[in-house]
Amino acid sequence: MSTFDVVDLIRTKRDGGVLSDDEIRWLIDAYTAGTVGDEQMAAMAMAIFFHGLDARELPTWTTAMIETGERMDFSSLSRPTADKHSTGGVGDKITLPLAPIVAACGVAVPQLSGRGLGHTGGTLDKLEAIPGWRADLDNAAMLRQLEEVGAVICAAGSGLAPADKKLYALRDVTGTVEAIPLIASSIMSKKIAEGTGALVLDVKTGAGAFMKTRERSAELARTMVELGTAAGVTTVALVTAMDAPLGRSAGNAVEVAESVEVLAGGGPADVVELTLALAAEMLAAAGVDADPAAALASGRAMDTWRAMIRAQGGDPDAPLPTPKHVEVVTAPASGVIQSLDALAVGVAAWRLGAGRARKEDPVQDAAGVTWTAGVGDTVTQGQPLFELHTDTPERIDRAREALADAVVIGADAAEPGPVVLERIAAP
Amino acid sequence: MSTFDVVDLIRTKRDGGVLSDDEIRWLIDAYTAGTVGDEQMAAMAMAIFFHGLDARELPTWTTAMIETGERMDFSSLSRPTADKHSTGGVGDKITLPLAPIVAACGVAVPQLSGRGLGHTGGTLDKLEAIPGWRADLDNAAMLRQLEEVGAVICAAGSGLAPADKKLYALRDVTGTVEAIPLIASSIMSKKIAEGTGALVLDVKTGAGAFMKTRERSAELARTMVELGTAAGVTTVALVTAMDAPLGRSAGNAVEVAESVEVLAGGGPADVVELTLALAAEMLAAAGVDADPAAALASGRAMDTWRAMIRAQGGDPDAPLPTPKHVEVVTAPASGVIQSLDALAVGVAAWRLGAGRARKEDPVQDAAGVTWTAGVGDTVTQGQPLFELHTDTPERIDRAREALADAVVIGADAAEPGPVVLERIAAP
Repeated sequence: MSTFDVVDLIRTKRDGGVLSDDEIRWLIDAYTAGTVGDEQMAAMAMAIFFHGLDARELPTWTTAMIETGERMDFSSLSRPTADKHSTGGVGDKITLPLAPIVAACGVAVPQLSGRGLGHTGGTLDKLEAIPGWRADLDNAAMLRQLEEVGAVICAAGSGLAPADKKLYALRDVTGTVEAIPLIASSIMSKKIAEGTGALVLDVKTGAGAFMKTRERSAELARTMVELGTAAGVTTVALVTAMDAPLGRSAGNAVEVAESVEVLAGGGPADVVELTLALAAEMLAAAGVDADPAAALASGRAMDTWRAMIRAQGGDPDAPLPTPKHVEVVTAPASGVIQSLDALAVGVAAWRLGAGRARKEDPVQDAAGVTWTAGVGDTVTQGQPLFELHTDTPERIDRAREALADAVVIGADAAEPGPVVLERIAAP
Repeated sequence: MSTFDVVDLIRTKRDGGVLSDDEIRWLIDAYTAGTVGDEQMAAMAMAIFFHGLDARELPTWTTAMIETGERMDFSSLSRPTADKHSTGGVGDKITLPLAPIVAACGVAVPQLSGRGLGHTGGTLDKLEAIPGWRADLDNAAMLRQLEEVGAVICAAGSGLAPADKKLYALRDVTGTVEAIPLIASSIMSKKIAEGTGALVLDVKTGAGAFMKTRERSAELARTMVELGTAAGVTTVALVTAMDAPLGRSAGNAVEVAESVEVLAGGGPADVVELTLALAAEMLAAAGVDADPAAALASGRAMDTWRAMIRAQGGDPDAPLPTPKHVEVVTAPASGVIQSLDALAVGVAAWRLGAGRARKEDPVQDAAGVTWTAGVGDTVTQGQPLFELHTDTPERIDRAREALADAVVIGADAAEPGPVVLERIAAP
């Protein structure tokens, strides 16, 4: 393989030029091996922030990251596979009811997930609130569970796209996270390496999302759909609203409880709607003609959930952890809730202990926020509106501060906006 | 002092915002101390490449770099001080005759210089070709020499603007050298810290210069003049041509020999012209009314040169080192020299051993290129045109390659362009 001068490559991108396939492959390999330094890749990432990666560079970059690690293979399974990825929202517990619903319809769901950082929670953190449940499975155990139960939610092994792991950590400390080609290649390198046959992307947009505008969210969605399609994965994206938080809870145990409500046929309307919309896309992308609502109504999804939790050491019947301290925040006025700020709710849950500021921080299983009313609901001044859950009461004041302006109450009628805003598929 | 989140600062600059004085001071201090990492400063430097530093940010940035180190003080001297800085050109030996000429006119010249890297030579490398001459002086010896001789050319101490030293090394490996605010603050932080009262900048422009276009060179010159003026240093810049190399030699011993010719009243016209133009600016900036041409013609400048070399251990009468191998390159055609490519000549001298590829490489005192004719001169096919000097003959082929298209010979009359293109002073 050729050797390049990394400074030449940085200058090429900095000046708006295009990198060749060989240059990109060399760069990613040399960075993974450490012969290109963090300071050089940081400069390159910032140059990409300004000039992007074009339609040839981006798939090459993504494939180069995949090829630094192992690829999983689900072709031995007796059923098709489908996976879902969400760009992260407040109260986004959708993976929990979604995986068993889709599995109950005959599609295997290998859901490799992460832990939370900042105000959006992590799926693994939530499930770890279930007594006994373990996130770490080896590949053999994962394949066995997919064959026997149909769904697995577990930690992504460190062998998938190690270049991405290193680059993501670098972007996080160098102000280069918010570059669509880098976001898209980071997500898609892991998802393509996972070996799923079909992939549905839930790209959040709005005040509580990483992407604040509809245009940027749609651009990210399109970019990822193109990358997945080019790699032979049937990929569809839904752009979904993240102005208000999803459901009525944000945290760990509280979101598991809400997910179980959904699987039991209840739960908040927005969570049910988004879960079924994503399930329908996953089934269609996997080529399976089945009705996810029927799987939910029949209890088959709940059965799969219980089997999935049990297969990973969890007790689906054990009581969930309860917080040592619960504080009630009351409605500041009477009227109709005009808006509820997802970011404020997410920050409050995070401050109560549900999330972490640094990767090595622990999270509290029982920490989080629940609320009794959402947009369009009528409340009376002084009625309980939020419950703050934590094991460490000194965190409550800062959580209250985060919620101070979170809810707007007015005289006008209001109703929640649509959850699914746009569907983006390959042309 | 306040503490900031470096990622916030990078994102501010990345998104076109402006950093506060406190933020800039904190950033430079934290980078020098190592609490802001190289990868973070590399991302910041690239963001500055794209968005620049505004008229308030840049002086703050420069001052913050100065304040990470010591400042020199020449106020105890009995005469005013003036310094010159060149952005680097091929055959640019001007400092060698200039410092003694200006000193002979009554202005002290504390010329802190560097070594060469790449195709432009370093002043210290050139002077080290003189047997016995030493570049390293402590501050006391430097002050004594300034008082007694009037001129000193020596290595800049490591105590001046250590932040710049660290940042320059980082920019060099991260493709972030070519940002005017970073170039200007790098040069001016050292020059202001040196404590000179007046400063004349020789900003090169053209194919053999770091800045290829007149516009960029003038912008750099203006930016540096503003920074110097704001710091209380009388600062003037000349934008000068660097399409053809200066004089008739590029290398170490060969450029010393040419400088001595100038001091003896001869030498190439362009070297004499530029030396006297810069000397006049230094004298005017220092407020001294004297004629540099008279100092040259009278032999006083030569006397000062000899005293300056002797004060630093050198023998002005010792023969200069001669190369083990000399190869002649003849004129490829008959006619008038239309152009001579400074970059090609610089690369040839560098390949012969006059310069270094890495900071730790040694240089050959006797290596270099001389030429017998310049733009506008008539040559005959087969007459000697270049002499290649080296101690290591295996380098000759690559030097010949560099020179292959260096000279254009044609039928038309031609004459060398002006050396000084533009003068830039504070309004």
